[in-house]
Amino acid sequence: MTKTIQVADIESRISALVQELLSTKFNNTSAYNNIMGMVAQQSILSSTGGKRLRALLTIESFLAATAAHTHDKAVTNNPSNYSHSLSHNANSDTANTLTTSQLDSNSLILDVACALEVFQTAALIHDDIIDDADLRRGKPSAHKALTTQTHNESIGVGLGLMIGDILATGSIAIVQNASNAYSQNHKMLNELVTPFIAMQREVSIGQVLDLGIEMMSFENLQELREASFEVFRWKTASYTTIAPIELGFLTAGIPAQDARKLALAIGEPLGIAFQLVDDLLDIGAGSHPTGKPIGGDIREGKRSVLLADTLEHLSQDDSEKIIRLYQQTQRTDDDVAFCLEKIHEANAIEISKQRVNELWQTTCTAISQSPIPASSQHKLREICKKFITL
Amino acid sequence: MTKTIQVADIESRISALVQELLSTKFNNTSAYNNIMGMVAQQSILSSTGGKRLRALLTIESFLAATAAHTHDKAVTNNPSNYSHSLSHNANSDTANTLTTSQLDSNSLILDVACALEVFQTAALIHDDIIDDADLRRGKPSAHKALTTQTHNESIGVGLGLMIGDILATGSIAIVQNASNAYSQNHKMLNELVTPFIAMQREVSIGQVLDLGIEMMSFENLQELREASFEVFRWKTASYTTIAPIELGFLTAGIPAQDARKLALAIGEPLGIAFQLVDDLLDIGAGSHPTGKPIGGDIREGKRSVLLADTLEHLSQDDSEKIIRLYQQTQRTDDDVAFCLEKIHEANAIEISKQRVNELWQTTCTAISQSPIPASSQHKLREICKKFITL
Repeated sequence: MTKTIQVADIESRISALVQELLSTKFNNTSAYNNIMGMVAQQSILSSTGGKRLRALLTIESFLAATAAHTHDKAVTNNPSNYSHSLSHNANSDTANTLTTSQLDSNSLILDVACALEVFQTAALIHDDIIDDADLRRGKPSAHKALTTQTHNESIGVGLGLMIGDILATGSIAIVQNASNAYSQNHKMLNELVTPFIAMQREVSIGQVLDLGIEMMSFENLQELREASFEVFRWKTASYTTIAPIELGFLTAGIPAQDARKLALAIGEPLGIAFQLVDDLLDIGAGSHPTGKPIGGDIREGKRSVLLADTLEHLSQDDSEKIIRLYQQTQRTDDDVAFCLEKIHEANAIEISKQRVNELWQTTCTAISQSPIPASSQHKLREICKKFITL
Repeated sequence: MTKTIQVADIESRISALVQELLSTKFNNTSAYNNIMGMVAQQSILSSTGGKRLRALLTIESFLAATAAHTHDKAVTNNPSNYSHSLSHNANSDTANTLTTSQLDSNSLILDVACALEVFQTAALIHDDIIDDADLRRGKPSAHKALTTQTHNESIGVGLGLMIGDILATGSIAIVQNASNAYSQNHKMLNELVTPFIAMQREVSIGQVLDLGIEMMSFENLQELREASFEVFRWKTASYTTIAPIELGFLTAGIPAQDARKLALAIGEPLGIAFQLVDDLLDIGAGSHPTGKPIGGDIREGKRSVLLADTLEHLSQDDSEKIIRLYQQTQRTDDDVAFCLEKIHEANAIEISKQRVNELWQTTCTAISQSPIPASSQHKLREICKKFITL
């Protein structure tokens, strides 16, 4: 790589891409300048403030796979032996090609990384509409901000819904445009767009499951826990860790099946661990303040692994009381405090931490068993570790 | 074509494609079978009942362009002379190739046509959430049906929103999969997916404009009318007529720029005329009953060309009264009846019909000046005419 991509590069590229998606000229009228300006501004605002972990993971995965490729060239003449080295598409198979297209690769992976972040924004905007959430990343959620600006809730929600649609579809266009601009390889285009679309579907299915779990009974705690894990897998791991790794590998020229297999091995346990950690942060179990009020998930009545673990280790009385609280439409401050106390009492935080550790070991094993050279494994592990930092 | 594609073929293919988009297997749990079943069933239900005009226009455009291609071969050796004949991509440029791939072309155009219909369903589901519409195609709208089934409005709306997301993204996947399956030409894939994504963006922008027009004043009727035309162009013509023609031409091998230019020339006036006719049908100006209560647009307070035309030709008193009614949050049966009476009095229906005629003439001129052979122009005109039948 001629130049390392920094978070500031990601930030400014996202802003430029979102601006482009929202910029529109009209034939006959200036009547829409106001509303389009408002929508564009909100789109950009909603796109800022993320930690960009997904983009960074995409880029690091690309770099690791590129290193494997280079390493590959140096140590073996048998790139098709997947068990020992990452094989590559025929089209990107000469070291020369790789060198001459380094600048293009840099631009391509940056845009692919940004597309993931743009999609996340889209998903969060729709998520906030579904949950009718007031806040996102410490600012008013998109549909709430637009409701305030238009003095009309149904218009605000409608505009938010459309921003989500525009950014979701637009994120696919970003991947496609980047492949067109920076790769002469139409096969590559296909191989990037296909998993990107598949990822969006997985997240939507995950959101359906998340709504489904709200209607589940508490009779079978094992089933509740497995259902919650399934939500973590589909709604979170899909786009948080699996797709970034897969897209990074694909952009580096790893064949689709290999990239998918490796991304699942490394990313699936990591993404599930990420959500377990996120749920721990929500109840204040992290080492740093999150800036959010503690117990938001309890207040929302979220069915989670943490909840299943808690219920399993309480007396029948306490367990039944918590179930009653979760069956109410709302929970008061006192209810939240009671649940928090019982989560601690049930040792559920430690159980979750143990789960996170086990998942993290699985991810580490997958990295160390991968064909990525040891010298590059460290940096990949480093970025992965950030997903589960309490 | 070895076999003519019928509406029944479209219907059953849409059903199979939607079923595939919603079919999901889970690793560890059967807890989600109910909710996924409900969502899949509603997706299929919401996908039925359309007139499939967009699919038919896609197919007829493909056939017309294919005819031009064949005709081309017969009458000229200069296919690059666009002013007299439709030029074609190099890759589909021999009559032999075309013959051997007829079956594949049939499958490809059918799926592209179905993808447009699937996207329409997605757009309508989101539209109905925004308008909180009870009914669609005579049945409960998706989010209402799901609210009834889950006994929970926020879950019903959330599931509806997700079905819209899954079908919108899924419609892109349908185009991509079909290109992969039925064409060895990766350039073709790119040329179909790009305008398909661009179309989705246009429809979402159109929906934003439609929300924007709700907040416009009635001070400048010329501006109101132009703003309404802009909504017709973006929210309706984009996917109703322009994209079907463009995708039909592209699938037949017409180069992207030519396909776009021709699709705009034929489809833009036609799509705008379609919406004018739709607004006339809404106030009962059609020759057949629509099955919907008359005046739904008035009840919703829809700002339209018809409304601008009406206000322009009324006494100041009547005009001010109608503006007051439209500024109310709701309109009663009496309000609707008053507006209907004034629309007739202002001769606005005739003005709209005149507009439709002029737009139709523009479409007909574009067809007759196109490189489509005269023998195929008739069938294309025939399907176009169906979009503006009162």
